[in-house]
Amino acid sequence: MTQPSEYKALTTETLSERLGGLSTLVKHVGPDAKDWKIQEVGDGNLNLVFIVEGSKSSVIVKQALPYVRLVGDSWPLPLYRAYYEHEALVRQATRNPGTVPEIYHFDNEQALIVMEFLSPHTILRYKLIAGERVQGLGDFLGKFCARTAFRGSELSMKSGDKKADVSLFAGNIEIPAISEALVFTDPYFDAERNHHTAELDAIVQNLRGDGELKARVQEMFMSFASNTETMVHGDLHSGSVMSTASDSKVIDPEFAQYGPMSFDLGMLIANFLMAYFSQPGHRNAAELDDYQEWILTVIRDSLTFFDAEFTDLWNSERTGMLYPAALFEDQGQSSQPALKTLLTRIHAEAMGFCGIEMHRRTLSLAHNADFEDIKDSSVRAPLEARNLMMGHELILTSHKILDADTLINLARHYNKGDFL
Amino acid sequence: MTQPSEYKALTTETLSERLGGLSTLVKHVGPDAKDWKIQEVGDGNLNLVFIVEGSKSSVIVKQALPYVRLVGDSWPLPLYRAYYEHEALVRQATRNPGTVPEIYHFDNEQALIVMEFLSPHTILRYKLIAGERVQGLGDFLGKFCARTAFRGSELSMKSGDKKADVSLFAGNIEIPAISEALVFTDPYFDAERNHHTAELDAIVQNLRGDGELKARVQEMFMSFASNTETMVHGDLHSGSVMSTASDSKVIDPEFAQYGPMSFDLGMLIANFLMAYFSQPGHRNAAELDDYQEWILTVIRDSLTFFDAEFTDLWNSERTGMLYPAALFEDQGQSSQPALKTLLTRIHAEAMGFCGIEMHRRTLSLAHNADFEDIKDSSVRAPLEARNLMMGHELILTSHKILDADTLINLARHYNKGDFL
Repeated sequence: MTQPSEYKALTTETLSERLGGLSTLVKHVGPDAKDWKIQEVGDGNLNLVFIVEGSKSSVIVKQALPYVRLVGDSWPLPLYRAYYEHEALVRQATRNPGTVPEIYHFDNEQALIVMEFLSPHTILRYKLIAGERVQGLGDFLGKFCARTAFRGSELSMKSGDKKADVSLFAGNIEIPAISEALVFTDPYFDAERNHHTAELDAIVQNLRGDGELKARVQEMFMSFASNTETMVHGDLHSGSVMSTASDSKVIDPEFAQYGPMSFDLGMLIANFLMAYFSQPGHRNAAELDDYQEWILTVIRDSLTFFDAEFTDLWNSERTGMLYPAALFEDQGQSSQPALKTLLTRIHAEAMGFCGIEMHRRTLSLAHNADFEDIKDSSVRAPLEARNLMMGHELILTSHKILDADTLINLARHYNKGDFL
Repeated sequence: MTQPSEYKALTTETLSERLGGLSTLVKHVGPDAKDWKIQEVGDGNLNLVFIVEGSKSSVIVKQALPYVRLVGDSWPLPLYRAYYEHEALVRQATRNPGTVPEIYHFDNEQALIVMEFLSPHTILRYKLIAGERVQGLGDFLGKFCARTAFRGSELSMKSGDKKADVSLFAGNIEIPAISEALVFTDPYFDAERNHHTAELDAIVQNLRGDGELKARVQEMFMSFASNTETMVHGDLHSGSVMSTASDSKVIDPEFAQYGPMSFDLGMLIANFLMAYFSQPGHRNAAELDDYQEWILTVIRDSLTFFDAEFTDLWNSERTGMLYPAALFEDQGQSSQPALKTLLTRIHAEAMGFCGIEMHRRTLSLAHNADFEDIKDSSVRAPLEARNLMMGHELILTSHKILDADTLINLARHYNKGDFL
């Protein structure tokens, strides 16, 4: 097997020669590497992604590129992010078994991970654009967020283990820096990388002129940058979920970092809200209402199952140093009011992050296909406007939006609005 | 020079032989090591501290012990804390020059630091017990807290440098673990290491029975354990300050960690409040009122100078990624409302940490000489009771105590109370 010690990007031509000797690939794909069918399918912003198909089955080979694919080599990006992605996958597999792809092989020098090919799963975002439903989606995602949040925190972990992990992940500088710039900063000024639909100019100007809004965003930014409560996925949008009609998995945790417990939940809900607002650009009136309502049930379920699962873990797995039983149950006192206060804070923060994600996906560098696939800007702009306006309200009133009903009613309200 | 590679605790007998060959000691102390006068003066909980005096001048040799001195070798403690103390001293000297002892030599293997002997400085706590005044004390301490808080955060530092530092300091597990146990947990249940004045039993029982209080303390604990906003001193009480009548220095940052910006300020004020409440045990009526009022002015100054200095740095040194000028000043918009919101949060958190420190110093393992030196428990108990009661109120209403006047009026109120 040829295993060059220096990093070299794989190609569909070189992959079978370079990886054909790996016993784990032979085992999963099939023995004759020269017969492998190799396809590059990476549509994300950062990596090469190959499907390698053989006589036995298929695997995914994901390799980091030394720059941001979306921008090109003018934006270099360290290869070590594959290391962090691998570390994150290992932790997620432990904290919520069966919810992330199985890893078959990791090569740190080549920044590549060979992993389970999810089939017939497809990217959730495109299902949402196509109007497909996924059974149990909110259940799955709410539990994923709750389990990874709880089990990666000092509510559960030994403090020494958690601090060692914080130290490890703090070595990842450049990947969080992408979120720091694109999510929390660029949307709120006229950054060079930005673009937005021209019809939104007045709304964008109003938003960038709102000092209170920006102060609130910076508060959330400070929390994102400093609060190491748990290991977050860091990029949990509908493009990081793959689903069939009844099964889902979470992929692509290369933005993993220690961050606020509320972050993944907030990002996730933002992406469902964007799917919701964009629907009139994808559906005719006959299907529209029903499908939009289904998306709202996914949001409701995500929040409800998050709370229920977090509560279960609080009651059954609270073995860390925080909120110890010695201070509550062992003294014959309930810890449920303390839990309620914590969940209230998590909800409020999630709503803040949610609003920010809604803004950056229509104003900053990386937009969502939910809106971008609507080519006619006279259709797209009013829908993006609803999204921007609701994001604005969420950020300013996040502390008041503490349950799913309030959030969903707000979404229905903005869904009727004409803001242009 | 004998420099054993394995750690060995120094003694007054072996110090001159073991360190006599160090050129930096010879330079500062004097050439004939056998003539050095060596005194062990460590009265803290964790270390050996020697004053080494020679023909030229004196230096301090501080060496970590592999266990908690106060408890003995049943509580082992890693020697690497000397490494973190040294790293912290270097950062504090950069972030607020001239406010910490100058370092002459650091030996990682022997866990020892040779540093400036502060003279005629004495420990501030004993000055406060003796009724001495220190000119400019609140000014000095308020600025120390503001400068180290601001310049150690991503308001000022490059994000990559700050994250590397977070990674470094997250390697320090056991020292934060002391605060985690003794400050945030033990006071609120019947922990084995605890002790308190018997007359306080009813108050302590009431306090440990207050679920809302404990939930709030655990919220602050979670922030202490997860919020890496800035490098904090971590143990900034009046025993970590040395003063003359008009000059002060901060010592002993071995509890340094990345933590909340509000932490040092809160700890500091707690220790001034304990000095305040304990005064009737140390002064006769003729001096009492004046001296207590002086302590309140130190508290007022600490808060006022913190705010003023933080504001100055915000306006002149805000070069980090947080609250960037691009979002405010560059758009012709003031960032002062955002600053005000941030300062309000820092104040509120500081009041929470303050109340917790007031509790742990009368209930947990390590008590303050302010109260402990009052040997007659019938005098001490009512004063400790005032301290506990005000701590209780501070924790529960921290978000309402946003300026020095409110805090000082509360102190005056509790100072008149009879709670036994």
